[in-house]
Amino acid sequence: MTDISKEITLDLKRQSRLGFDEAIFCAQKSPPQIDEILQQARAQDRPLLLTRLSPAGWDALAPAWAGAMDYDPVSQTAFLNAPARAASRGEIAVVSAGTSDIPAAKEAVRTLHYYGHEPAEIYDVGVAGLWRLLDRVDDLKERRVIIAVAGMDAALPSVLGGLVGGLIIAVPTSTGYGVAEGGATALKSALSSCAPGVLVCNIDNGYGAACAAIRAHNAYSGGAT
Amino acid sequence: MTDISKEITLDLKRQSRLGFDEAIFCAQKSPPQIDEILQQARAQDRPLLLTRLSPAGWDALAPAWAGAMDYDPVSQTAFLNAPARAASRGEIAVVSAGTSDIPAAKEAVRTLHYYGHEPAEIYDVGVAGLWRLLDRVDDLKERRVIIAVAGMDAALPSVLGGLVGGLIIAVPTSTGYGVAEGGATALKSALSSCAPGVLVCNIDNGYGAACAAIRAHNAYSGGAT
Amino acid sequence: MTDISKEITLDLKRQSRLGFDEAIFCAQKSPPQIDEILQQARAQDRPLLLTRLSPAGWDALAPAWAGAMDYDPVSQTAFLNAPARAASRGEIAVVSAGTSDIPAAKEAVRTLHYYGHEPAEIYDVGVAGLWRLLDRVDDLKERRVIIAVAGMDAALPSVLGGLVGGLIIAVPTSTGYGVAEGGATALKSALSSCAPGVLVCNIDNGYGAACAAIRAHNAYSGGAT
Amino acid sequence: MTDISKEITLDLKRQSRLGFDEAIFCAQKSPPQIDEILQQARAQDRPLLLTRLSPAGWDALAPAWAGAMDYDPVSQTAFLNAPARAASRGEIAVVSAGTSDIPAAKEAVRTLHYYGHEPAEIYDVGVAGLWRLLDRVDDLKERRVIIAVAGMDAALPSVLGGLVGGLIIAVPTSTGYGVAEGGATALKSALSSCAPGVLVCNIDNGYGAACAAIRAHNAYSGGAT
Amino acid sequence: MTDISKEITLDLKRQSRLGFDEAIFCAQKSPPQIDEILQQARAQDRPLLLTRLSPAGWDALAPAWAGAMDYDPVSQTAFLNAPARAASRGEIAVVSAGTSDIPAAKEAVRTLHYYGHEPAEIYDVGVAGLWRLLDRVDDLKERRVIIAVAGMDAALPSVLGGLVGGLIIAVPTSTGYGVAEGGATALKSALSSCAPGVLVCNIDNGYGAACAAIRAHNAYSGGAT
Amino acid sequence: MTDISKEITLDLKRQSRLGFDEAIFCAQKSPPQIDEILQQARAQDRPLLLTRLSPAGWDALAPAWAGAMDYDPVSQTAFLNAPARAASRGEIAVVSAGTSDIPAAKEAVRTLHYYGHEPAEIYDVGVAGLWRLLDRVDDLKERRVIIAVAGMDAALPSVLGGLVGGLIIAVPTSTGYGVAEGGATALKSALSSCAPGVLVCNIDNGYGAACAAIRAHNAYSGGAT
Amino acid sequence: MTDISKEITLDLKRQSRLGFDEAIFCAQKSPPQIDEILQQARAQDRPLLLTRLSPAGWDALAPAWAGAMDYDPVSQTAFLNAPARAASRGEIAVVSAGTSDIPAAKEAVRTLHYYGHEPAEIYDVGVAGLWRLLDRVDDLKERRVIIAVAGMDAALPSVLGGLVGGLIIAVPTSTGYGVAEGGATALKSALSSCAPGVLVCNIDNGYGAACAAIRAHNAYSGGAT
Amino acid sequence: MTDISKEITLDLKRQSRLGFDEAIFCAQKSPPQIDEILQQARAQDRPLLLTRLSPAGWDALAPAWAGAMDYDPVSQTAFLNAPARAASRGEIAVVSAGTSDIPAAKEAVRTLHYYGHEPAEIYDVGVAGLWRLLDRVDDLKERRVIIAVAGMDAALPSVLGGLVGGLIIAVPTSTGYGVAEGGATALKSALSSCAPGVLVCNIDNGYGAACAAIRAHNAYSGGAT
Repeated sequence: MTDISKEITLDLKRQSRLGFDEAIFCAQKSPPQIDEILQQARAQDRPLLLTRLSPAGWDALAPAWAGAMDYDPVSQTAFLNAPARAASRGEIAVVSAGTSDIPAAKEAVRTLHYYGHEPAEIYDVGVAGLWRLLDRVDDLKERRVIIAVAGMDAALPSVLGGLVGGLIIAVPTSTGYGVAEGGATALKSALSSCAPGVLVCNIDNGYGAACAAIRAHNAYSGGAT
Repeated sequence: MTDISKEITLDLKRQSRLGFDEAIFCAQKSPPQIDEILQQARAQDRPLLLTRLSPAGWDALAPAWAGAMDYDPVSQTAFLNAPARAASRGEIAVVSAGTSDIPAAKEAVRTLHYYGHEPAEIYDVGVAGLWRLLDRVDDLKERRVIIAVAGMDAALPSVLGGLVGGLIIAVPTSTGYGVAEGGATALKSALSSCAPGVLVCNIDNGYGAACAAIRAHNAYSGGAT
Repeated sequence: MTDISKEITLDLKRQSRLGFDEAIFCAQKSPPQIDEILQQARAQDRPLLLTRLSPAGWDALAPAWAGAMDYDPVSQTAFLNAPARAASRGEIAVVSAGTSDIPAAKEAVRTLHYYGHEPAEIYDVGVAGLWRLLDRVDDLKERRVIIAVAGMDAALPSVLGGLVGGLIIAVPTSTGYGVAEGGATALKSALSSCAPGVLVCNIDNGYGAACAAIRAHNAYSGGAT
Repeated sequence: MTDISKEITLDLKRQSRLGFDEAIFCAQKSPPQIDEILQQARAQDRPLLLTRLSPAGWDALAPAWAGAMDYDPVSQTAFLNAPARAASRGEIAVVSAGTSDIPAAKEAVRTLHYYGHEPAEIYDVGVAGLWRLLDRVDDLKERRVIIAVAGMDAALPSVLGGLVGGLIIAVPTSTGYGVAEGGATALKSALSSCAPGVLVCNIDNGYGAACAAIRAHNAYSGGAT
Repeated sequence: MTDISKEITLDLKRQSRLGFDEAIFCAQKSPPQIDEILQQARAQDRPLLLTRLSPAGWDALAPAWAGAMDYDPVSQTAFLNAPARAASRGEIAVVSAGTSDIPAAKEAVRTLHYYGHEPAEIYDVGVAGLWRLLDRVDDLKERRVIIAVAGMDAALPSVLGGLVGGLIIAVPTSTGYGVAEGGATALKSALSSCAPGVLVCNIDNGYGAACAAIRAHNAYSGGAT
Repeated sequence: MTDISKEITLDLKRQSRLGFDEAIFCAQKSPPQIDEILQQARAQDRPLLLTRLSPAGWDALAPAWAGAMDYDPVSQTAFLNAPARAASRGEIAVVSAGTSDIPAAKEAVRTLHYYGHEPAEIYDVGVAGLWRLLDRVDDLKERRVIIAVAGMDAALPSVLGGLVGGLIIAVPTSTGYGVAEGGATALKSALSSCAPGVLVCNIDNGYGAACAAIRAHNAYSGGAT
Repeated sequence: MTDISKEITLDLKRQSRLGFDEAIFCAQKSPPQIDEILQQARAQDRPLLLTRLSPAGWDALAPAWAGAMDYDPVSQTAFLNAPARAASRGEIAVVSAGTSDIPAAKEAVRTLHYYGHEPAEIYDVGVAGLWRLLDRVDDLKERRVIIAVAGMDAALPSVLGGLVGGLIIAVPTSTGYGVAEGGATALKSALSSCAPGVLVCNIDNGYGAACAAIRAHNAYSGGAT
Repeated sequence: MTDISKEITLDLKRQSRLGFDEAIFCAQKSPPQIDEILQQARAQDRPLLLTRLSPAGWDALAPAWAGAMDYDPVSQTAFLNAPARAASRGEIAVVSAGTSDIPAAKEAVRTLHYYGHEPAEIYDVGVAGLWRLLDRVDDLKERRVIIAVAGMDAALPSVLGGLVGGLIIAVPTSTGYGVAEGGATALKSALSSCAPGVLVCNIDNGYGAACAAIRAHNAYSGGAT
């Protein structure tokens, strides 16, 4: 093992402790660091979920790893040794306000897929054209968890929170410009909503929203308790 | 005249220039300054609109001025010599998201009254209970200008902007707490709305929203051009 | 009915739509407004939960309402006609980092009580004295939902998120001073946590956290779907 | 149709509801997404306005779409199937403080053209050289709506608001550096102006300002009521 | 001398070094601290300028010091042993945008008086009523230094900077509300002005502006070089 | 003339009004806009100072203009037809805290040169090595105006303000990282200095500082009054 | 014991783990909570340090506790059962920039006293009058740790960091106004200092600075290793 | 010597004054400036530590300097003439929360190496997997100084501060996204920690943390007193 191996301490007990595998946030790691992490995981025969792996980052890894991994450029996620799991189907919905919010929405979808959940996907139903959302309310009332992904059209989680009774997880996104402030306005907007019990993740954090949905699922379906 | 008179230069030509009388923002003026301004206006037989005049501020003025003025404690506005004017009826609507937003909404209403406009008033129709707003959409489609006053339930102007075609003026309010940040989140939320052409005033600035509505009215009804 | 009644549009259908009763945020409403809301609710024989009702606010209402309502000064909440409900016992835990965080924690507890949930209460277990939290981990692993209330000692939700697999809802509080920035640092700290799937409410929003916990409970126990 | 088509839900009823066609904010959409949107619009024979379409973005579309569309690189706007409309001539003025503010000003002008309005255009009349503006006051007094585009020289809308009585819509721009803070100072400066009734859009949002002007025009000229 | 005397180290050499006497910012000092400073100054027969001395603070000092000091409640300044000095007459102008800006303007005026400068005082000439300022331009062109005090109507220093060639020192004030952000918007607005060479002090810092004007006077009139 | 000419309204009377020539901030203008401005100036035989003209921007202009202009890449300034003027020698000093602050310092120096002032230049004397500054105090006491350019080592203007009596103009710079916040900390640090009468420009605004120094010079040397 | 006892979990093992006793931050605790904490400590015969105990807070406790505790109103600290300890004399210096910074400085001094350290105290030596600091440099070079307390005159830690080689701990204070931003500018100013190795505490956190000094002392004098 | 030499004033007395050599922050210096500094240092036979020297910056220097210098691309540091020094071994520990924090951690390690300190290095032990840290507590209790480097997993310094008694220096890093705000949240989080006596450096400032550790070492080991 090279020296870089000392920079890494994989959290091997996370699955038994939390019900999650280790996941690797790649945006601020160097290609040699990511490669080393993959090697350690493979040596121990463990699955890994990689997030924020840019196409350029994937290109650096692909010569050695393309065969062993499944990469999706829209969500910027990759799977290594993802086990086959069938956890839920349609229990969770991922909803986006606009087309620009797709990357964060797809990060949530891919994380859910990795853990065996098959969410409903409903895109581009922001409140600027309210009928698009109202058309889907009856469907959404059937979902246990709704991940609402919205940036410029940030009223979506608030409006949803007043329409349906399931668990609502807002993912503010960095779409927009000017006072959108890279997603901070969408985030604060969702947090100060009048609709009771809307919860929030970090900006663009589709991964975190999916994990929270899985926590709810596991807590109530035997996974964690 | 006392020395304090030198601290004041009334804008005597504002009516002919802009279609507005001088208005006095009282929040950061001392009682002697406000008294002096009232005396100068009375000496010149001119009408005045006073805003942000707190009950305590009014109490300081009342012994000398109660007979000559009309004070409203909810909107914290007072009129001196308000001329009788009949400018419009139902052309403008003032809409609030919550009951807490009433003071700013009433500042707009009182300013409109001062200038002879009789707005429709529709309160507590925030999007957390969307049906309350949808019930009023047909009515609101008939208004030329809608002043949408909202703080915690800040999605109101965005949702309105997607439902009706009239001129929409958002008044973010300082209601709420935490990340509501004294109204800044509501303000940015309205500004970054996806609904086309929603305009915004300063936080709690019902006066400014009313003036903007009057500008639109005057521009198209012969007042200004 | 007085004129003030027009400032109020109660959301009468919220219970059937969302599983929540109307709740009244009192901090920025005038005593006459709150009194009017109570009268409308009583006239329609509906239950109400009041939050952010300061002792001074309660004193203004008490002469007329003390007999009909149940007020708690620590959480600043009051119940009107709270129905007897038995929803869960020990399923949810409310955990605070410090003694200063009690008011927000108790707002969550009282909201849960209002809806018939009996949470476990575990206080003053911030990570500055980590053993206090580690002593409770086995207990916390049994809870489906953990509401983690923390201000100065804001690492609590992050550390919890790495220790237990249930749904974790952080309530940042406005305790602390200087760069604590009224709770904003605790809020951002929880949102940028590395622990997967920690969700966040507005600062001091114990009410919202409780509603979110109830959403999860209802979604998986037949309440909403 | 490819899978990407599910990421798009065009707001087909916007014209009848609001008097606006669907418009596409391209800055954060991928070329395949934009291409898909254009195809859906063409398939339904609908007009589209595209904003924030960078020259690089246009280059990606041009091979397939150059013949069918009209692209302007300064305003970064494109038209697809823009219908011929003649709505107004000289009723609206677009005024800029500096030469650097031209892109946002032109976004407003192009949006107005798209909807059949022919605005007056008056550029580089910031208050640092006040005579440039004073020379145009008589002209500006004849306009019903003035769109005032200003970044570094952000006093323009305030000064205008004290000189003319028409509807004034400020577009703060991201020109400048340091404490200009990407347009935030210009935005707040316009919002806190003493001149009565100055309204504000998001930073660089020439499109929104034009839409607001059209709302005013439609409201008073039969378009919306 | 009491223990409190060790908390104070008067800057005895400031006059010879900089041309200024020691000045005492009282806002965050306790009455015993201020009393001790006055006693040390009197014991050494030295003049002192006190700023931000609130009426309540003065009331605490007045029993012992009223005879020896000259207190002005509008500017919240007091003089101890101010020497008679005749430095300039009309060389400096203090200009305010609004009546609410008077306290900061008067702090500048009083500081100038303390050092023997007799400024011109021109108040309430904000650009919302531009004629008020234009009427004074010929006068202002004769001044070597202009201290421009403005909060809500923050365009004043920018507009002045384009009209006259003298040294312009902006004092942003904390008047206004909402996005005025306690004077921060006025400060940034003056700093990002297009008019060449406008300089800025801290918010409400009339004292600092006067000191800067005195630096310019001294530098060019033999005081400092 | 092309259409672009309408985007430009040169301030032809600035020299007689303020004592400054028109100056062109190039950072956010397109090469065709700058070229057009140069052509208009040449056609009217007027001098121009260009600031924030990047090497890439200059390369775009150089083929046509290299012979007629004087470009300096460190300060990113260029002169067109700069008249020979001899205004002062050694009256003004430009002082920098660090080597990284040189570009802003040189922008001031070049602006002064353009107007015929020959400043003293003293670099890299930040307070982290205080002896470097103390060695120069006797020299600095002889200057009428000191332009103090500092970013990371932002204490320089405060310390200078306590050491010398001349007019002090701080230019905060965008050097540093993290909490330096692109110069905002240096700016606020200089503004909240205890040293009396330190004035401040926008971040990196060497041009503005030079203009302010020239205002002081002109005001007291006959230029403006 | 009352119910309030459940809100408290004293960190009984802190002394053996860290070398510190439990300390109680009183600012946001209710009098009954503080009383309960004191009772628990007394019952277990443990010493306590209380910080941010306002005079009003002390008045609420005094009837029951005045005999057992030592309260100091300037530093707002109180001791319960403080053991006699003699840890160091003159090893640590507490230095303040201004007289207004005394409360935070005294919080550090009292914390040091509680733990048996006798610091040197040097006040009002801010860099606006640099000679005051230079006079003390030889003394300060003899100290192992310097706690530098500064708000408005925030250059003090930076300048010190360039003059002496000991460990420097900056305590930014909330003195000042406007852009001082409640101490945030002083904090960032110390953090972005060019002087190598200056460390920083939270705003006004004299307690934390003293604890850090004690950590250094203990680490090198046998306390912790 | 060229003209650029005047832009540099090396702090030649820093070693004797503070116990540090001059260090050069390269991020915002031009290659000619860095080259000139290196030449001056070599001419005077003095050692230099260079920080924030990017690989591109090194490539510009390498042709002339590769033989004389030791460059490390991960920490972006270089040594010129680093003297052999043996100061400590294992006294200091550098701990990182995540693999993404390695660059800042290595900047600290390299600075320590430059001064002859051999720190323990412990990486990727953030609190999201708490066992990783708890496994190392016994080791960490033996260290006199702990440099805790953390961005996304910013609870690390707080948790450490409650576990071990040595001097703790937090280095917040710019890892993370959204509300991590480039490290500002990690910084404020460490500063508002409840654990007593945690100190903080600027974001990513591994160099400063190392210097502070060396100050503590020198102060107690004869270096500075």
